[in-house]
Amino acid sequence: MDRIEVTKKIMTAKVAKKMKWADIAAKIGASKEWTTAALLGQMTLDEDQAATAKELFSLTDEETAWLQIVPYKGSLATAVPTDPLIYRWYEIVNVYGTTIKELIHEEFGDGIMSAIDFSMDIQREPDPKGDRVNVVLSGKFLPYKQY
Amino acid sequence: MDRIEVTKKIMTAKVAKKMKWADIAAKIGASKEWTTAALLGQMTLDEDQAATAKELFSLTDEETAWLQIVPYKGSLATAVPTDPLIYRWYEIVNVYGTTIKELIHEEFGDGIMSAIDFSMDIQREPDPKGDRVNVVLSGKFLPYKQY
Amino acid sequence: MDRIEVTKKIMTAKVAKKMKWADIAAKIGASKEWTTAALLGQMTLDEDQAATAKELFSLTDEETAWLQIVPYKGSLATAVPTDPLIYRWYEIVNVYGTTIKELIHEEFGDGIMSAIDFSMDIQREPDPKGDRVNVVLSGKFLPYKQY
Amino acid sequence: MDRIEVTKKIMTAKVAKKMKWADIAAKIGASKEWTTAALLGQMTLDEDQAATAKELFSLTDEETAWLQIVPYKGSLATAVPTDPLIYRWYEIVNVYGTTIKELIHEEFGDGIMSAIDFSMDIQREPDPKGDRVNVVLSGKFLPYKQY
Amino acid sequence: MDRIEVTKKIMTAKVAKKMKWADIAAKIGASKEWTTAALLGQMTLDEDQAATAKELFSLTDEETAWLQIVPYKGSLATAVPTDPLIYRWYEIVNVYGTTIKELIHEEFGDGIMSAIDFSMDIQREPDPKGDRVNVVLSGKFLPYKQY
Amino acid sequence: MDRIEVTKKIMTAKVAKKMKWADIAAKIGASKEWTTAALLGQMTLDEDQAATAKELFSLTDEETAWLQIVPYKGSLATAVPTDPLIYRWYEIVNVYGTTIKELIHEEFGDGIMSAIDFSMDIQREPDPKGDRVNVVLSGKFLPYKQY
Amino acid sequence: MDRIEVTKKIMTAKVAKKMKWADIAAKIGASKEWTTAALLGQMTLDEDQAATAKELFSLTDEETAWLQIVPYKGSLATAVPTDPLIYRWYEIVNVYGTTIKELIHEEFGDGIMSAIDFSMDIQREPDPKGDRVNVVLSGKFLPYKQY
Amino acid sequence: MDRIEVTKKIMTAKVAKKMKWADIAAKIGASKEWTTAALLGQMTLDEDQAATAKELFSLTDEETAWLQIVPYKGSLATAVPTDPLIYRWYEIVNVYGTTIKELIHEEFGDGIMSAIDFSMDIQREPDPKGDRVNVVLSGKFLPYKQY
Amino acid sequence: MDRIEVTKKIMTAKVAKKMKWADIAAKIGASKEWTTAALLGQMTLDEDQAATAKELFSLTDEETAWLQIVPYKGSLATAVPTDPLIYRWYEIVNVYGTTIKELIHEEFGDGIMSAIDFSMDIQREPDPKGDRVNVVLSGKFLPYKQY
Amino acid sequence: MDRIEVTKKIMTAKVAKKMKWADIAAKIGASKEWTTAALLGQMTLDEDQAATAKELFSLTDEETAWLQIVPYKGSLATAVPTDPLIYRWYEIVNVYGTTIKELIHEEFGDGIMSAIDFSMDIQREPDPKGDRVNVVLSGKFLPYKQY
Repeated sequence: MDRIEVTKKIMTAKVAKKMKWADIAAKIGASKEWTTAALLGQMTLDEDQAATAKELFSLTDEETAWLQIVPYKGSLATAVPTDPLIYRWYEIVNVYGTTIKELIHEEFGDGIMSAIDFSMDIQREPDPKGDRVNVVLSGKFLPYKQY
Repeated sequence: MDRIEVTKKIMTAKVAKKMKWADIAAKIGASKEWTTAALLGQMTLDEDQAATAKELFSLTDEETAWLQIVPYKGSLATAVPTDPLIYRWYEIVNVYGTTIKELIHEEFGDGIMSAIDFSMDIQREPDPKGDRVNVVLSGKFLPYKQY
Repeated sequence: MDRIEVTKKIMTAKVAKKMKWADIAAKIGASKEWTTAALLGQMTLDEDQAATAKELFSLTDEETAWLQIVPYKGSLATAVPTDPLIYRWYEIVNVYGTTIKELIHEEFGDGIMSAIDFSMDIQREPDPKGDRVNVVLSGKFLPYKQY
Repeated sequence: MDRIEVTKKIMTAKVAKKMKWADIAAKIGASKEWTTAALLGQMTLDEDQAATAKELFSLTDEETAWLQIVPYKGSLATAVPTDPLIYRWYEIVNVYGTTIKELIHEEFGDGIMSAIDFSMDIQREPDPKGDRVNVVLSGKFLPYKQY
Repeated sequence: MDRIEVTKKIMTAKVAKKMKWADIAAKIGASKEWTTAALLGQMTLDEDQAATAKELFSLTDEETAWLQIVPYKGSLATAVPTDPLIYRWYEIVNVYGTTIKELIHEEFGDGIMSAIDFSMDIQREPDPKGDRVNVVLSGKFLPYKQY
Repeated sequence: MDRIEVTKKIMTAKVAKKMKWADIAAKIGASKEWTTAALLGQMTLDEDQAATAKELFSLTDEETAWLQIVPYKGSLATAVPTDPLIYRWYEIVNVYGTTIKELIHEEFGDGIMSAIDFSMDIQREPDPKGDRVNVVLSGKFLPYKQY
Repeated sequence: MDRIEVTKKIMTAKVAKKMKWADIAAKIGASKEWTTAALLGQMTLDEDQAATAKELFSLTDEETAWLQIVPYKGSLATAVPTDPLIYRWYEIVNVYGTTIKELIHEEFGDGIMSAIDFSMDIQREPDPKGDRVNVVLSGKFLPYKQY
Repeated sequence: MDRIEVTKKIMTAKVAKKMKWADIAAKIGASKEWTTAALLGQMTLDEDQAATAKELFSLTDEETAWLQIVPYKGSLATAVPTDPLIYRWYEIVNVYGTTIKELIHEEFGDGIMSAIDFSMDIQREPDPKGDRVNVVLSGKFLPYKQY
Repeated sequence: MDRIEVTKKIMTAKVAKKMKWADIAAKIGASKEWTTAALLGQMTLDEDQAATAKELFSLTDEETAWLQIVPYKGSLATAVPTDPLIYRWYEIVNVYGTTIKELIHEEFGDGIMSAIDFSMDIQREPDPKGDRVNVVLSGKFLPYKQY
Repeated sequence: MDRIEVTKKIMTAKVAKKMKWADIAAKIGASKEWTTAALLGQMTLDEDQAATAKELFSLTDEETAWLQIVPYKGSLATAVPTDPLIYRWYEIVNVYGTTIKELIHEEFGDGIMSAIDFSMDIQREPDPKGDRVNVVLSGKFLPYKQY
């Protein structure tokens, strides 16, 4: 058994029980973004969260234990994703990658925006011309320090 | 001559003249995000903007004309970027890709967040524990419509 | 012109003038590790450091300006390095990668050891059975926070 | 049967029994770094260590025997690792690889830092600005000798 | 000299002279779709069209002759295009490929839609919710005949 | 079940019953060329033909239904075939490809010879110096039309 | 100098002088199919033919000599051709490859149809529904003999 | 079932019964070279030969029928073979390929040496300095004829 | 300068002077097979042979010296050769590779036929049904010795 | 069944019975180097050796027969081995390859060092500074002979 099998079981249960990530997140007690990532096998649950997940998805003790183990991360099967929704994000990195680099460096100097000390908030932004997806990414700036 | 050569000339001039993207953007009359992407060869300038760029970077008439031509886009040399700053964004797509997909689908149904009817705002977010990079991505939701 | 050409010119001057990284670092006013990385095109120099480098390596004004621009990082020509010394480090990541992951997670929980808020110190460790290379890597632990 | 199957069984037992590498290492009688690498299939246990592992993880006689056989090493599924923690180490090799090479050669002359006559110590380094991961790598310098 | 060099010369002249495909097409005396494909090196011009092109782009006699030679076709540098506009068409083939196959077969039986006895019309379709690109592809159905 | 399995079953039955393609074609009521292609999974049978095939090869109802579905075409395992007979045809395309292109274009102008509105006739041509294979390929010329 | 350079010179001269393969073949004294293949660098000319070619394309003595040397054959840049006309022929090999194999074997037994003792005749076949390309391939059957 | 499975069964029976190719060939009534190639799945047996093989290797009726079907030829798993004996032959083609080409063309003109109207004889050639393998390859010369 | 350039110069001289390999070999004083391989850059000439070649092909002193240096061998541009004559030899290795392996092993036991202690003789074999190419390959058998 | 399955069974039995290659070799009656290669599926055992192996590893009659058949050789899963011990040998070939070629040629002239008429002896060489692995490779020099 490994984490991937637990993820598959969770997805199967979610589909069968017609659950929503937002509702699951409310029960887990975390944002929908973090909860979804965690249950898709990218984050680590604490004991209480795992117990909630156990109940929600009818997991065994061993499956529940795996949720509390830090997973080997990475959710894409290929370097360039084929799913249209995820591809758009890859395209943003491809088209805007050097732009993002130039602007963060201009504002902060040499360093990176952390993908770990990081949070993401995905919201619907009503718009008469068609609603928009509004995503706020917040990552700590980590400077390359001189030593 | 092609657009890539124009981009190299702009970068060399910018380095030699110690210009900043924010100042350049103010003169071009657009956001710093869009201006940077445009001058890095990913967007198209209008005639006035190109004229401003011509002066700023001492371009020839033909180089100026190329800025008004829609470029063949894509700014990365490899599918997986090696630069740490850009890699973190790739990693976000890799670790959170399926999460983003699930949550947008849950909120909006099947469709994508546009990478074209799209804007990006990169700001410094002061934080006593270390300033953060705050990025707002706003993309129109484009539903797969049933027809 | 780009940063790679500046790096090549620096390497050529260093060889011709028989300089040592430790001496160069003393003049630049930073550790030998950081200075070497910077002059090999991986870090960004400030104005004073760049001025020192200009003098040491007989650089032009434009070359000096490039040293103050954040570079596109990455120093290896291939994903798996062929140089025996660098390969040993790749091999350490390959053989010990999952071990490092398990132990950092066990001690700190889910997160990473930063490669940005990071310093490295390379020292000779005298040993009667043959001197050793002693490397201390110090990277801030960055936890995946729940949100 | 092969060593990979034994590793999977050990991981599943460790998860089910909620064991810690540090405790396992204490029982095995070796450092946590070496013990973890060994039980993840990269090192070879002696008879007593294997007997301890047999008891800890409820292994069969044949599985126990495999632990005493030198394994075919290598723990990563891809040349460039996707897990963020392990990737950061790969990035260190990528960004600092030529720097490490220059400095070891400057101090020791031509040769390598051994990845075999090698030890690693991973410790938490308390820091008011956020604890750090402190890693000491100690590898014998092996000179290319002239002969 | 070959056709690719002639195409480059035409593109440079078009940029320098700020010509539009629609105007060029009107002078060439064909649709803008066909004319663009032809001048990008994918179709063959007749003698009159080539003479017009000669004048428009200041071509030599030999360059003009090449325009009347059937070219070796194919215009993309990579199997998966990186330019967002062209990628969307690739995505249509990827996502809808089997659908298109099923539906044409259901309506017509076994055969293909010709890419040769084929025309394409690209028009702006005004729409209060945002103008649309309206593309009509018209290809003769070519049945696999039994014989 | 898919079409490939049906093809394998047909081949096994044909081998076991020592049938000939020419005889099978006579019963199916089509040319031997078309019939062979169809039963090797490249063409679509109509209801009567499928019923005949059902009887000839002792197929089940489901297998018979598959024969009436337009298949995903392509019969070679590798881009360059290893079988000597099929390789010779590949070699003809390789050695004579540009010749065929030049001559058809010279005679017909820009366009292609259809591989759909196409028939093939393979006959023995007695010859005192050794019989020859005479193949007539007839494909409709499809011009690129100007529009 | 090599044969490829001679082929390029011939093509450029043919374009500049607006010659036709059929007329060139009449002067060379061979079929248009063979002549075209020969002048595209796939066949060997005899001394008289080379002398005619010398005059037709204004070749030097050395270039003329190369035409009489057996060339390294193969005219495609990629294993799968991208030009639509040549691709259709590749598609014929792909879709009908196993069919051709089965039928030649059924008629002749194990062996091949020669691509060397081979001739090709390409003709226009008038057809009220659209003219057709009629190609006759005639290759000697070469049996695998038992020994 | 296909020919590859029949080949595996033959090899296993040959190993179990400790048969020799020379003896098998004597019973089949053909040279050892042809017989071995045939039973390794590269040639076609006639009815009598297949009956003999049936008895020798305890084949079923269907397996026996497969031996009389022309196989899809090719016996190597990779384009460049790894087995040392077969690699030496590949090396001969690689090192002497252009030499063979030059000499056959010098003697015969443009054409090939047939690999179909071909026989091979492998013999031990006693030699006091170590016995040699003497291989005679005899292939009909097939000229490219002009037409 | 390297050996490949010397080979090109030799080929150009041979074409210009209409020399034959057999005549060249007689002057070099070795078989036509060895001489051709040597002058195509696969073998090493001794001083006298190089002096003869110098005169025959009007080489410079440096070019002549290169002929006496052991070359890096290998004469094919691609793993699978596209030239029909050389491909037939590749096909022989592909179709008969496992046969050759079985028969040499049956006669000699485990080992190889040397491609170094090796000679090749290519002769015309008159045959009323069409002359044949007769090739004798003689390679020392090299057994894997037990030790 | 094939040789690879026999090798796996031998390895599992060896692990289960805690046998040593040196002891196995003594019973087989050959050097440890040859015996290990043979039992790992790279060499051929004679009847007595196979009978000994049968007893040692509890093989069936058929498995024992396979040991006496010359295997298809090659033991690595990837072109560049990941195991550190095997990688060092790959590195020797990579770093010293051209050196070895130059020196053998300088001493012996054009030719190779045989990998067949070859033996290898691996011994511990006591050394106060740390014991050494002493490997003697002995391969017959095989000159390219002129003929």
